[in-house]
Amino acid sequence: MTKEEIFNQIKQKQSYLCVGLDTVLQKIPRHLHSEKDPVFEFNKQIIDATADFCVAYKPNTAFYEALGSKGWESLQKTLEYIPDTFFKIADAKRGDIGNTSQLYARAFFEQMQADAITVAPYMGKDSVTPFLGFPDKWVILLALTSNPGSADFQTTALTSEEMLFEKVISVSSKWADASQLMYVVGATKAEQFKHIRKLIPEHFLLVPGVGTQGGDLALLSQFGMNKYCGLLVNASRSVIYASNGKDFAVQAANETKRMQEEMAKYLEKYLV
Amino acid sequence: MTKEEIFNQIKQKQSYLCVGLDTVLQKIPRHLHSEKDPVFEFNKQIIDATADFCVAYKPNTAFYEALGSKGWESLQKTLEYIPDTFFKIADAKRGDIGNTSQLYARAFFEQMQADAITVAPYMGKDSVTPFLGFPDKWVILLALTSNPGSADFQTTALTSEEMLFEKVISVSSKWADASQLMYVVGATKAEQFKHIRKLIPEHFLLVPGVGTQGGDLALLSQFGMNKYCGLLVNASRSVIYASNGKDFAVQAANETKRMQEEMAKYLEKYLV
Repeated sequence: MTKEEIFNQIKQKQSYLCVGLDTVLQKIPRHLHSEKDPVFEFNKQIIDATADFCVAYKPNTAFYEALGSKGWESLQKTLEYIPDTFFKIADAKRGDIGNTSQLYARAFFEQMQADAITVAPYMGKDSVTPFLGFPDKWVILLALTSNPGSADFQTTALTSEEMLFEKVISVSSKWADASQLMYVVGATKAEQFKHIRKLIPEHFLLVPGVGTQGGDLALLSQFGMNKYCGLLVNASRSVIYASNGKDFAVQAANETKRMQEEMAKYLEKYLV
Repeated sequence: MTKEEIFNQIKQKQSYLCVGLDTVLQKIPRHLHSEKDPVFEFNKQIIDATADFCVAYKPNTAFYEALGSKGWESLQKTLEYIPDTFFKIADAKRGDIGNTSQLYARAFFEQMQADAITVAPYMGKDSVTPFLGFPDKWVILLALTSNPGSADFQTTALTSEEMLFEKVISVSSKWADASQLMYVVGATKAEQFKHIRKLIPEHFLLVPGVGTQGGDLALLSQFGMNKYCGLLVNASRSVIYASNGKDFAVQAANETKRMQEEMAKYLEKYLV
């Protein structure tokens, strides 16, 4: 999927919402447990209910791996079910030496038909570039994550001017341009978006941490938006577990609609 | 598996070799392709042939994920096949926010019955600690990897005294002691082992990069060994692809025997 295609979807739907499919078997409403593949059935109904209000879906692979090879099948079926007009992100946080990253790339881009994969930067350039050899496929590199542990290494000062995550951004942004590379920047760090936009004005940012983790959608939209919107804001638990009853899909639709309407306002206000 | 149990195996076998099961379908000898599960059959024969000369096995999960849910099954069967006297490492390089890391931990420690998992440090403490809640299970944290990209961020100077990987070691070594935490330190950085041993005299180091990647076994053994040996040296491609003919298992045995005999000498010489 190209940058322009993503932007077109955002304009059409007036939304830059990504729904995180972090599906836990134990949290799926009871009436679905008799289905042959409850995880897939849950995802399918969530996708059907939320498709009008979001532009991307992001299954986190951990939730599927926890169920073994059966979970892996549910993940594959889920990615196949999502229509191709959506940006499909495998939130896998992979990264390994070159020949190994190459295999991960094939697993997620060819086997799974994902458009993008999240990658951890610690192992450097040759762990990331194998993911960049696939046309219209994307790397989403971890820069500044939304969790408390981001303070352990990511915000370590290298000089009085630069923290580690800023070096990660400035070094890696030479490996690929904004048509293949995005960054994860947590919504809980909204004050950082202004500065990050100076380093990378053009790149899309994938923003977790709105919803359950408490990030500020208004603020990050104000500071983070660029002329292509440049933001994909993820919500997982606040959407997919909006209700644990038979109305789970209706409530998920309501929650995504609420976020979409808020996003429409910010697009009106901040899109350059 | 406890530290003492690992050390006992090392003494018994006079070996600190770990065999990396990085099995690529295309590289498996032809005569195995008619098997129902060629990947598992290959691993099984490699394990049978090398078991006398090594103390650990390390499948890298990428090689199995590349084959989809079928590969995931081959991985599970392989881990089940390895006898419990061996230290079983899932080389997964995972790491995510707390609730997600928890799921990866369950996938690898409970579903897969691995003894250890490799974890990337970039997301900090709360991405690592969920893996530490399982008795006699281990985290092996990436510190200084064997690939060229390790120079991009890992060896970045934080002060005139400290590089990033050293901060990763000194900070994370407070999260767990040497009975639960190991570090990945690449063999291609043998000159660093002396210094690393000052930071963490007690911890085991998992050392990739001997064999195909060219690390120096003599030097790293001299600088890296401690009173529990403290080293698990991995060889993957140089062992499992020692031959691509019908004699692949025999040649794998020869290569591991050669390494074991070299290791026996270093244990004699350097074990404190």
